[in-house]
Amino acid sequence: MNKKTKFILDEEDMPRYWYNIQADLPKPLPPVLHPGTGNPIGPQDLAPLFPMELIKQEVSTERYIEIPDEVRDVYRLWRPTTLFRAHRLEKALDTPAKIYYKYEGTSPPGSHKPNTAVAQAYYNKMEGIKRITTETGAGQWGSALSFAGSFFGIEIKVYMVRISYDQKPYRRVMMEAWGGKCIPSPSPETQAGRNMLAKDPDSPGSLGLAISEAVEDAVSRDDTHYSLGSVLNHVLLHQSIIGLETKALMEKIGVYPDIIVGCVGGGSNFAGMYLPFVKDKIDGTKPNLRIINVEPASCPTLTKGPYAYDFGDQAGLTPLMKMFTLGHNFMPPPIHAGGLRYHGMAPIICHLLNLGLVEARAEHQLGTFMAGITFARTEGIISAPETMHAIKVVIDEALKCKESGEAKTILLAHSGHGHVDMAAYEAYLSGKLSDYEHPTGAIKESLAQLPKVY
Amino acid sequence: MNKKTKFILDEEDMPRYWYNIQADLPKPLPPVLHPGTGNPIGPQDLAPLFPMELIKQEVSTERYIEIPDEVRDVYRLWRPTTLFRAHRLEKALDTPAKIYYKYEGTSPPGSHKPNTAVAQAYYNKMEGIKRITTETGAGQWGSALSFAGSFFGIEIKVYMVRISYDQKPYRRVMMEAWGGKCIPSPSPETQAGRNMLAKDPDSPGSLGLAISEAVEDAVSRDDTHYSLGSVLNHVLLHQSIIGLETKALMEKIGVYPDIIVGCVGGGSNFAGMYLPFVKDKIDGTKPNLRIINVEPASCPTLTKGPYAYDFGDQAGLTPLMKMFTLGHNFMPPPIHAGGLRYHGMAPIICHLLNLGLVEARAEHQLGTFMAGITFARTEGIISAPETMHAIKVVIDEALKCKESGEAKTILLAHSGHGHVDMAAYEAYLSGKLSDYEHPTGAIKESLAQLPKVY
Repeated sequence: MNKKTKFILDEEDMPRYWYNIQADLPKPLPPVLHPGTGNPIGPQDLAPLFPMELIKQEVSTERYIEIPDEVRDVYRLWRPTTLFRAHRLEKALDTPAKIYYKYEGTSPPGSHKPNTAVAQAYYNKMEGIKRITTETGAGQWGSALSFAGSFFGIEIKVYMVRISYDQKPYRRVMMEAWGGKCIPSPSPETQAGRNMLAKDPDSPGSLGLAISEAVEDAVSRDDTHYSLGSVLNHVLLHQSIIGLETKALMEKIGVYPDIIVGCVGGGSNFAGMYLPFVKDKIDGTKPNLRIINVEPASCPTLTKGPYAYDFGDQAGLTPLMKMFTLGHNFMPPPIHAGGLRYHGMAPIICHLLNLGLVEARAEHQLGTFMAGITFARTEGIISAPETMHAIKVVIDEALKCKESGEAKTILLAHSGHGHVDMAAYEAYLSGKLSDYEHPTGAIKESLAQLPKVY
Repeated sequence: MNKKTKFILDEEDMPRYWYNIQADLPKPLPPVLHPGTGNPIGPQDLAPLFPMELIKQEVSTERYIEIPDEVRDVYRLWRPTTLFRAHRLEKALDTPAKIYYKYEGTSPPGSHKPNTAVAQAYYNKMEGIKRITTETGAGQWGSALSFAGSFFGIEIKVYMVRISYDQKPYRRVMMEAWGGKCIPSPSPETQAGRNMLAKDPDSPGSLGLAISEAVEDAVSRDDTHYSLGSVLNHVLLHQSIIGLETKALMEKIGVYPDIIVGCVGGGSNFAGMYLPFVKDKIDGTKPNLRIINVEPASCPTLTKGPYAYDFGDQAGLTPLMKMFTLGHNFMPPPIHAGGLRYHGMAPIICHLLNLGLVEARAEHQLGTFMAGITFARTEGIISAPETMHAIKVVIDEALKCKESGEAKTILLAHSGHGHVDMAAYEAYLSGKLSDYEHPTGAIKESLAQLPKVY
């Protein structure tokens, strides 16, 4: 098996520009609406939360946006990342398919998240911001932002959902190692937190409430902004470096993917991979390219939700975005892939799905772990439970190739390692893991509460 | 700060040979002795435990030993590894020193250990072995060997010290994810284990007992061998790929280190880095090269132990090796750098220290964590507590350069990440970590029990 396994760009060839899909969309994105008036929101509505550069990126139609030198200098600590050819997995599956994966797990926080965290910290620093607040569920985003804050001298304050704070102390410690401050939500530090604690002193918290706390904290202080780790256009823009690096490497090797596969929660990792490729489908160069967004069957946003205006958060504080949604009150079952438990999806992904440019598939938990173990025992990497969703579909597609005899090129967006998810592996390996019933009733109930758009 | 940060060899340029220091030693290593007779041991004494290829490597004086293709093919999953220039750390320290580090933390198990685990699994496979037993303390070695076993279809059975088995369940799960079997030691599966359980059903176990169980298991079955993750000559040989890659990269850049720094427990990681460099000191090309072995002040083998014959294990089952030692009965304080809690040291390192070719330094725990946090907040990497010992000395040497104005080149052997050591970070960050009294009494007591050599 003396075939090349790893492909990596020279540090000098790391992309100097992010790619902005808004320049190439066949139809522009539906506007984001103010929940009070139903009118499109403007920059001034977002200014208390985000620096103006990010607000501009959110609506820009420039095709390429320069990556500041200061951001590239931090990226260098782990970027460019490696593209692997999965020879061992191919052999184990006895498939003619050629499987590649771009691996984002070598970033210090262990996932793709710092690609945007570093950029966001930088633009806030440039605007004189001293503090950034955010929320975190399982802790990946909170640790990525703490990591980013340490390079620009910005204080990071993370509101971590109480139940995760108690169950995953090591993620909190990781944030603290990078200098971040992490407190459980509900906290006594905000009105939203105090209200909840008065109602239920033992509240386990929720991502929606943690967002409310982080936003309240940010707007109450002039030196403080708020930061979001997925969903928004500027976040997907920053993640496009994944796809740009991959495309440059594949051009060097002389291959082009037939199928691109990744997992989607808010969607930023996978969109970051495929936006530079979907461009080729839009302009007609690669009409047959297939792009498969993989989501959990227990949180089937793209495969079962309607395309409608909804809030981005559970508490209903954000503007209204048009997206496939299960309703902002939908509470997904407690699957181990915490990063995929989101009721909505990045508006850009939803728009592309609606235009028929990408497709979606839902996978059950048990099958994804089976795929993850196969990956660990062939390619060696212990993958995050989120990533296993994509691995499941890669294996399925490779096995289809075996049946049909086609030597398709399959590209996997591998979003990160599972070193802090070993409890999930333990549950699976000890036979305690189960699938969840399809949450039909809960989705119906939640969809009944979609906001009315004026 | 637009200076190059990362240096990595092309996959094609990954070394094809390991470097064997025994070819270049100014004086040969002292013989390994049979504890019963006091005579040098021969291959037949080791044959029940190790494949003949490894026994040959243990005593070979060939300068270069070819790395089998099958081993290189697995290495490709994470090798060659990256050499970093620590621009941000240099800036934070305001030092004229140029700091480089070779990072082994991107291997799937997270450390340098698989460099030898993969080779050992391969040679056992070639000899028709179906099962390998080993012991593990904190779990790094057990997971590296499980990882390696998965590629060659070898069953890995790990005896994990009971107290670690209970305290660090995730390391066990990692072994299982790769298909390894891990049970707590003392176990009811061996006579040694049953004896201990009869005496104390709640025994927390010890590394010495776990070795006894693994060895008893291995010799009781024809299809089974035993494997050791450090100390032995063939282990250091396999780790020499770290130094060979580093040397090749530094030659490309046109620099040569003035000081090389690494941490030592059994010594395989750091020796793997510096053996290809110490060659230049032996042959007189680089007479001023300094090589600093860093150990914990609470387990000061090289700085406080005598150079004497001792057992490699606590139970007194192994042959006698000449090494700096605190006595095989020495029980180091429970510092978080579990991988450095070893009473002895690789005989090759001890020989080089005795010849004055390398030096040693001991560091206290608190200072190493302070250094580790500085590294996390500048270079971004959460380091293992073992590695922090080396980082402490790198920072000290860089600060000396600041005082003297010298722009020395300092090379750090970075052995791995600390993602599974967050409990240690938590103890430090919450102010609960303390230094240990120097274990003078315990060392004296243990040294009184050194074996008599005939």
